[in-house]
Amino acid sequence: MGRVVEITDVILRDAHQSLLATRMAMEDMVPACEDLDNAGYWSLECWGGATYDSCIRFLNEDPWERLRTFRKLLPKTRLQMLLRGQNLLGYRHYEDGVVERFVDKAAENGMDVFRVFDALNDLRNLKTAIAAVKKTGKHAQGTICYTVSPVHTVDAFVEMAQHLKEMGADSICIKDMAALLKPQPAYDLVKKIKEKCGQDTLIHLHVHSTTGVTMVSLMKAIEAGCDIIDSSISSLALGSGHNPTEAVVEMLEGTGYETRLQKDRLLKVKTYFSKIRPRYREFLSDFTGVDTEIFKSQIPGGMISNMESQLKGQGAADRLQEVLEEVPRVRADCGYPPLVTPSSQIVGTQAVFNVLMGKYKALTGEFADLMLGYYGSTLGEKNAEVLAKAEAQAKKPVITGRPADLLKPEWDHLRSEALAQEGCNGTDEDVLTYAMFPQVAPKFFKSRPEGPKNLGKDPVKKDAAKPAEAKADKAAGGTNGAALSGPVTYVVSLHGREHKVTVAPGA
Amino acid sequence: MGRVVEITDVILRDAHQSLLATRMAMEDMVPACEDLDNAGYWSLECWGGATYDSCIRFLNEDPWERLRTFRKLLPKTRLQMLLRGQNLLGYRHYEDGVVERFVDKAAENGMDVFRVFDALNDLRNLKTAIAAVKKTGKHAQGTICYTVSPVHTVDAFVEMAQHLKEMGADSICIKDMAALLKPQPAYDLVKKIKEKCGQDTLIHLHVHSTTGVTMVSLMKAIEAGCDIIDSSISSLALGSGHNPTEAVVEMLEGTGYETRLQKDRLLKVKTYFSKIRPRYREFLSDFTGVDTEIFKSQIPGGMISNMESQLKGQGAADRLQEVLEEVPRVRADCGYPPLVTPSSQIVGTQAVFNVLMGKYKALTGEFADLMLGYYGSTLGEKNAEVLAKAEAQAKKPVITGRPADLLKPEWDHLRSEALAQEGCNGTDEDVLTYAMFPQVAPKFFKSRPEGPKNLGKDPVKKDAAKPAEAKADKAAGGTNGAALSGPVTYVVSLHGREHKVTVAPGA
Repeated sequence: MGRVVEITDVILRDAHQSLLATRMAMEDMVPACEDLDNAGYWSLECWGGATYDSCIRFLNEDPWERLRTFRKLLPKTRLQMLLRGQNLLGYRHYEDGVVERFVDKAAENGMDVFRVFDALNDLRNLKTAIAAVKKTGKHAQGTICYTVSPVHTVDAFVEMAQHLKEMGADSICIKDMAALLKPQPAYDLVKKIKEKCGQDTLIHLHVHSTTGVTMVSLMKAIEAGCDIIDSSISSLALGSGHNPTEAVVEMLEGTGYETRLQKDRLLKVKTYFSKIRPRYREFLSDFTGVDTEIFKSQIPGGMISNMESQLKGQGAADRLQEVLEEVPRVRADCGYPPLVTPSSQIVGTQAVFNVLMGKYKALTGEFADLMLGYYGSTLGEKNAEVLAKAEAQAKKPVITGRPADLLKPEWDHLRSEALAQEGCNGTDEDVLTYAMFPQVAPKFFKSRPEGPKNLGKDPVKKDAAKPAEAKADKAAGGTNGAALSGPVTYVVSLHGREHKVTVAPGA
Repeated sequence: MGRVVEITDVILRDAHQSLLATRMAMEDMVPACEDLDNAGYWSLECWGGATYDSCIRFLNEDPWERLRTFRKLLPKTRLQMLLRGQNLLGYRHYEDGVVERFVDKAAENGMDVFRVFDALNDLRNLKTAIAAVKKTGKHAQGTICYTVSPVHTVDAFVEMAQHLKEMGADSICIKDMAALLKPQPAYDLVKKIKEKCGQDTLIHLHVHSTTGVTMVSLMKAIEAGCDIIDSSISSLALGSGHNPTEAVVEMLEGTGYETRLQKDRLLKVKTYFSKIRPRYREFLSDFTGVDTEIFKSQIPGGMISNMESQLKGQGAADRLQEVLEEVPRVRADCGYPPLVTPSSQIVGTQAVFNVLMGKYKALTGEFADLMLGYYGSTLGEKNAEVLAKAEAQAKKPVITGRPADLLKPEWDHLRSEALAQEGCNGTDEDVLTYAMFPQVAPKFFKSRPEGPKNLGKDPVKKDAAKPAEAKADKAAGGTNGAALSGPVTYVVSLHGREHKVTVAPGA
């Protein structure tokens, strides 16, 4: 028997976040739970910022109810979530009391493993959340956001791992959201962390498959001693998603490493999601291949389409290449943050501004904040000239302390605001929903009684839309000479897929 | 500087064979040749049975002209072809004189590297072709078709490699057409071949990406000393195709291995083929993911769809699972041939017969021939009972000698038949076309003067049918109440991109 490599499946969270715009309804995950629970996973990642957001914004689902349902349906397996440190699942820093409250409630509702990260790798943005998880007795995973830059050496990451251990992290996650982790650095990183932090340090590796090299990185990390790896059931994998779980199992045959996974269970889960996937094809990412240009620009696919639409809006679609070349320079100027939400958007938008308006002629408010330390500190030095411009424009001082230290206790205030919303049920969970999504929560509280919406569509039925109208058109003149009085919905076939589109004739 | 790993790109042959049903026109490959030639490849695979067949069957292209054009446009790089041993590029055994003539002509027209294989791994089916290549002074690559069975041990393959070397092979190819080669066997196989045949034995590894593990197998093979590997430019890779060339280059960074490839040239080729690919979308394989079930059934995707349509034709579509389970049993009965053309079709069809009509109640003629030795010998023993049935049904004896030894000299006869065809130009090349494709060649000889057909379609133009009618519609009623007399073209926005689509109202 070889050494056991443990597996976390991300099918219930990051897989559909990466490939189906986070739209999968709980209803479509429930039938897979029994097989997932009995397959032998170390954990199942099933909760995070985007799923929470999507639940209340698009699916009319209570995210806490989703968590409790997972807990009930997955009694044998650890539940895992992704937590943005001091940002929780929202888009700003929260005061420590709110962070603690969130962690308590998540633990109480069934969460086992908290993967805590900060977009800038600023440890001060992780410490409250990690301490809170430790206090509940649950598993606190400290996260290194992997990136590549002149300052991000293997030694720098190893030092970060040491600090995370000192903070009490039960395991260390290497999170490679942009698929930048190549096989040799994967090996070196795991090897050195084990050497410096102790061979018993649990290392958990999360990679995406976008660049096509990370399956090999998984293998090399395992050879270096990596304990747990993330993958996704093959019917919802690859592209900007993850490496396929079944392939990870097969890859290890004869190597002296093995998983505890039951292939028959995996096959059932795969077959199940292969039928669910086409129900969400309108949300399906177009990108199913491999893109190695990311190594050069470090710009994830989602960010490129963002920048494209910003440029189009300014009638400057032809300047994308200039922007792509500007991004690494902007990133250098602000101290080489890893490019992940929100730093990727902040850097990308500033690069667009620089190209359209001249170098740092105008700074976005968010970019100024990033320069001035309001998101936390970066590993690299900031460009002094650009920093001076940020100070001048934002009329705010540079801060060097922990951003959340500027915040006053806010729970009571958030609680009374939340309770004033129609439909708020008065629980701490509802207050947290309001605290993290103040724009979306009020609408959700009101519509919640209507119950969950499933945005998946039967691939056959969905095409048979408005048969009555079509018939009426036909009656009025068949396919020739139908009188149209407004936009009409058609089913069109594009790249071999059927899409429903609404068009205005002659437009 | 690390050890150099050489790369063969299959973009000009196996990539579009695997992903675009071999339909790519020479015209669409020409513009990429300069970059391909200067990228630093060891060789470019550009010719084989399916491309030859497709040229004369679908594209009205002279395959010899295609070869000469490649030679002219790729002066710096070795041209490589795939040769089915004694079958040449056709579907039967040819007498040695024809084999020699073919090899001479291919070498004369510019071929450098001949990858010679036999579907059954019967070395006697390789020896004439390998000797013929050696005689021309070109590179003879002896091929092991990789498969998994109780008799296909690493040692058995190593022994085959030794025999290939004794036959004069300049290099050894491990050909994993079904993506069955896992990382550890890849390592062991390369390691042991080097140990037994000498460290200077050139080993060339060909894998497909279908099962999702073979990128790792490439890495492990390289670690074991593999000299050359096959890959394909990323815009025409993955699925049942190959691992992406650019990802192979990136994967090696820092490992002590490196390629000679120029990334800027690869990017140009990638960008070019990303624009060509959509032109062939009607031929594009649906399968873009990973399928690990192949490890169990060993049934390649193409074979499954074959069997499905055979079953459907018999009104027995619901019995696919039974057939999938029957295939490994039939394969065992006929001595564990690797499943590759034509053995995959022969075994698959017999499995269908067994399920529909009862176990070996009826044998196909091809299956009887396979049992009786008319395709060559298999590594495993044949089932004696089934062998007896084959003898009884086919009324032919078992043969143990080399199948081609039964053939009489046939060149003169083939030549006079070919010359009798309208449009045959009297060259040995035309005689070979006729010899290998006697059904298709006559039609091709006749239509050849019309010149090549390009089956690719402009993804925009093809949808922009009848613009005059659309204009007329607009004139007749603007956006409200336009009387439509036929399909109209609209521009619709889908997933953030604009597409031109043609729709029929009321359809």
